[in-house]
Amino acid sequence: MAEAAMAASVHPANAEPDRIGRFLEVFADRLDANRSDIALAAHEETGLPLETRLAQIEFGRMLGQLREAAKAARDVSATSWRAPLVDEASGIRSDFGPLGGAVLTIGPNNFPLAFHAVSGGDFAAAIAAGNPVIAKGHPLHPETGAMLARCAAEAVAEAGLHPATVQYFHQCEPEDGLRLVSDRRIAAVGFTGSREAGLSIKAAADASGTPCFLEMSSVNPVFILPSALAERGDQIGGEWAASLLMGTGQFCTKPGIAIVVGDGGDAFVETATSALREAAPGVLFSAAGVDRLASGIDAVEAAGAVLRCGGASGSPGSRFEPTLLEVDGDDFLKSFDELSQELFGPVGLVVRVKNLDEASGIALRFGGQLTATMYTGGDDDADWAALEPILRVKCGRLIENKMPTGVAVVPSMVHGGPFPATGHPGFTAVGLPTSVHRFAMARCWDGVASGRLPAWLR
Amino acid sequence: MAEAAMAASVHPANAEPDRIGRFLEVFADRLDANRSDIALAAHEETGLPLETRLAQIEFGRMLGQLREAAKAARDVSATSWRAPLVDEASGIRSDFGPLGGAVLTIGPNNFPLAFHAVSGGDFAAAIAAGNPVIAKGHPLHPETGAMLARCAAEAVAEAGLHPATVQYFHQCEPEDGLRLVSDRRIAAVGFTGSREAGLSIKAAADASGTPCFLEMSSVNPVFILPSALAERGDQIGGEWAASLLMGTGQFCTKPGIAIVVGDGGDAFVETATSALREAAPGVLFSAAGVDRLASGIDAVEAAGAVLRCGGASGSPGSRFEPTLLEVDGDDFLKSFDELSQELFGPVGLVVRVKNLDEASGIALRFGGQLTATMYTGGDDDADWAALEPILRVKCGRLIENKMPTGVAVVPSMVHGGPFPATGHPGFTAVGLPTSVHRFAMARCWDGVASGRLPAWLR
Repeated sequence: MAEAAMAASVHPANAEPDRIGRFLEVFADRLDANRSDIALAAHEETGLPLETRLAQIEFGRMLGQLREAAKAARDVSATSWRAPLVDEASGIRSDFGPLGGAVLTIGPNNFPLAFHAVSGGDFAAAIAAGNPVIAKGHPLHPETGAMLARCAAEAVAEAGLHPATVQYFHQCEPEDGLRLVSDRRIAAVGFTGSREAGLSIKAAADASGTPCFLEMSSVNPVFILPSALAERGDQIGGEWAASLLMGTGQFCTKPGIAIVVGDGGDAFVETATSALREAAPGVLFSAAGVDRLASGIDAVEAAGAVLRCGGASGSPGSRFEPTLLEVDGDDFLKSFDELSQELFGPVGLVVRVKNLDEASGIALRFGGQLTATMYTGGDDDADWAALEPILRVKCGRLIENKMPTGVAVVPSMVHGGPFPATGHPGFTAVGLPTSVHRFAMARCWDGVASGRLPAWLR
Repeated sequence: MAEAAMAASVHPANAEPDRIGRFLEVFADRLDANRSDIALAAHEETGLPLETRLAQIEFGRMLGQLREAAKAARDVSATSWRAPLVDEASGIRSDFGPLGGAVLTIGPNNFPLAFHAVSGGDFAAAIAAGNPVIAKGHPLHPETGAMLARCAAEAVAEAGLHPATVQYFHQCEPEDGLRLVSDRRIAAVGFTGSREAGLSIKAAADASGTPCFLEMSSVNPVFILPSALAERGDQIGGEWAASLLMGTGQFCTKPGIAIVVGDGGDAFVETATSALREAAPGVLFSAAGVDRLASGIDAVEAAGAVLRCGGASGSPGSRFEPTLLEVDGDDFLKSFDELSQELFGPVGLVVRVKNLDEASGIALRFGGQLTATMYTGGDDDADWAALEPILRVKCGRLIENKMPTGVAVVPSMVHGGPFPATGHPGFTAVGLPTSVHRFAMARCWDGVASGRLPAWLR
């Protein structure tokens, strides 16, 4: 696969921005033409709702990303991701261009379309930069992946790109996967998934000096400040519960931990608890996921958290009850590592803290996160100002007064953050054209004759 | 040091772009006021020529970079490194900002001013992004480093930044250095130096998920194509010899390996050999450097290269004779790892290859390089076109018809390249404001009230 990708990377057709753009557009059109079949397969393989989640929202997001990527691929302007710069006096020019090998994309279980290795955001960005892609789909949705990959292969042929521009598989032994990661012909890796898998991929990539863009676990802390609690604690409790339940709590931006500041948090906790208690058990992606979640909750209870509702698996299928756990700030800090782990499912932890000092101490302990949120009220300016410098550098996206679930695909989105939420704080996995930069190299052309330059540097 | 830097990173004064800019300007002015003393110390500690190399060229470059960085620090425009983006409809904004911890800069022996940990390019870029810096100077020029650091400390005080904005040391046990690299409060590392030291720093940084920007060894291959040889082989041979001798061959962009294509290379080799034979032995930075170079040359000879001139150390001091080695393409490929190592000093290797196929095979074997160069003549268009796709993705800077020594500080410069020349192909260590991006994180502000935003995002 790697050797075929190397051939694709130097194929002249693959250096044509318009042809790359055409591929992405044709691919999106073919996917759209097969929308009902693909969405149905994804529904059957993941248990996610067909309407509107898969067939409308996620399908539309996938198509939108591919079409945005097509625009990015075609864009050779001064404001494009290519960032062409010309210094006439010295004859030195620069731009960003493809990496000279395959981008290996490794997709997650929780978004079988919009984050799929062969049709999702990493794929779109890697192709837009002009790279061939070797895509490893998730083994939990093989049929969906095969249908997506078939559309990609047809679009590759129709656009006249090298046939190895897109290669696809969905299963391999972990050691074979890691060997591929560290193969010198793999120019970069894009991964979305668990921290455990991500760290093993990172180790293999680091050993060979391969740039590796990981999107791993994040508990997305939400701080609810005193006057927000006083003004609308019950309403925020309902928002939090609703956000926890989205995608059965299997979103990377699930607000897993709520830090409730001061003694006015009862209404928040009561509303959230009753909302979760009333919600039906949700379907998880696999029986293994149910087991992991149950043992994760056991560990959190053993570390001092109290179960307020839920906590058990359900049936039919791989279901789990919406679950709320609670702990006070002292105990949370005492057992921080055990209590701050991500629980992948409809589970939230409330941390009750006495005051802003205690909240600051907790904020300082967190590692890198995709998001951090503060809910504020009329009298929380000083508290915001005290927490903001701590939280700003812990997360890619800092949010005020809304829940982190829902990642808009706009250029100003940053779906990223410091390690261990991701592998590098300077990039975003969502938001074209910025996300293309993960899969592009900085290139300088010094004294090169005009006829040999890319058109946008002449 | 790390704890003090954390305090600096959240100090309100350090968040003011104008104050950062002022520091950099005052620092440059203070250095300029002490130019003769500092340049003299650097001369005495490195053996590099005082005039014009240190006192004029390198000093001017150092000041220029600091002043360019001051402009970058103050620049809050849409085209600045901050890259502010505002999506009014969604209320989602983004920019780049400081990393929330110290940048650890580790400087090399070969540019005691312009690449110094406390006054060079990494320092300027890290400060411009708003980060505190912990700078480790090179132990071979302690007095120079102390003078530079003193000016920095005075400028920090005058600009009213937190006193721990710049911290400096020049020596530590390797294991203490690696412990600092992997300290969680170190937000990023900038390193210039040997591959061996770089790889151990990379391993420590990778283990803690710390972004690490390395500039390591590079042999900067120069391909001299057949009609260039026919038209002006002797002239190019002279240019190559002169480039090899710059800084006594201790430049990161030294063109260490010349690949001479076809059977017209005799004039090139003869001119280069006689130029090197006539040149006086040059001063290396240390006696250890002389030993390393001698044993490196032994290893290259053992692997099949033939000594054409030089090869011995000289006196007084740590001198080494300009040296030329030669090998044919077959033998070069057979013992590629031994023969393609960097020899840090006034030493070059000529590889004589039969034809372009053999040259392409060699180009494919090279790992990442800072630069790659092709010398072309009137009939070399097809050869350029055949080699360009291979070399383009192996190097940060692709050069036609000039030697790679001389790294202009212009925005379109890329002083970078794929691993193992550096740690990441998407960045440059030279060329403001682009180099700032190594030390900045992508930040999103989602729904954040206008009064809480940085001025450039309101």
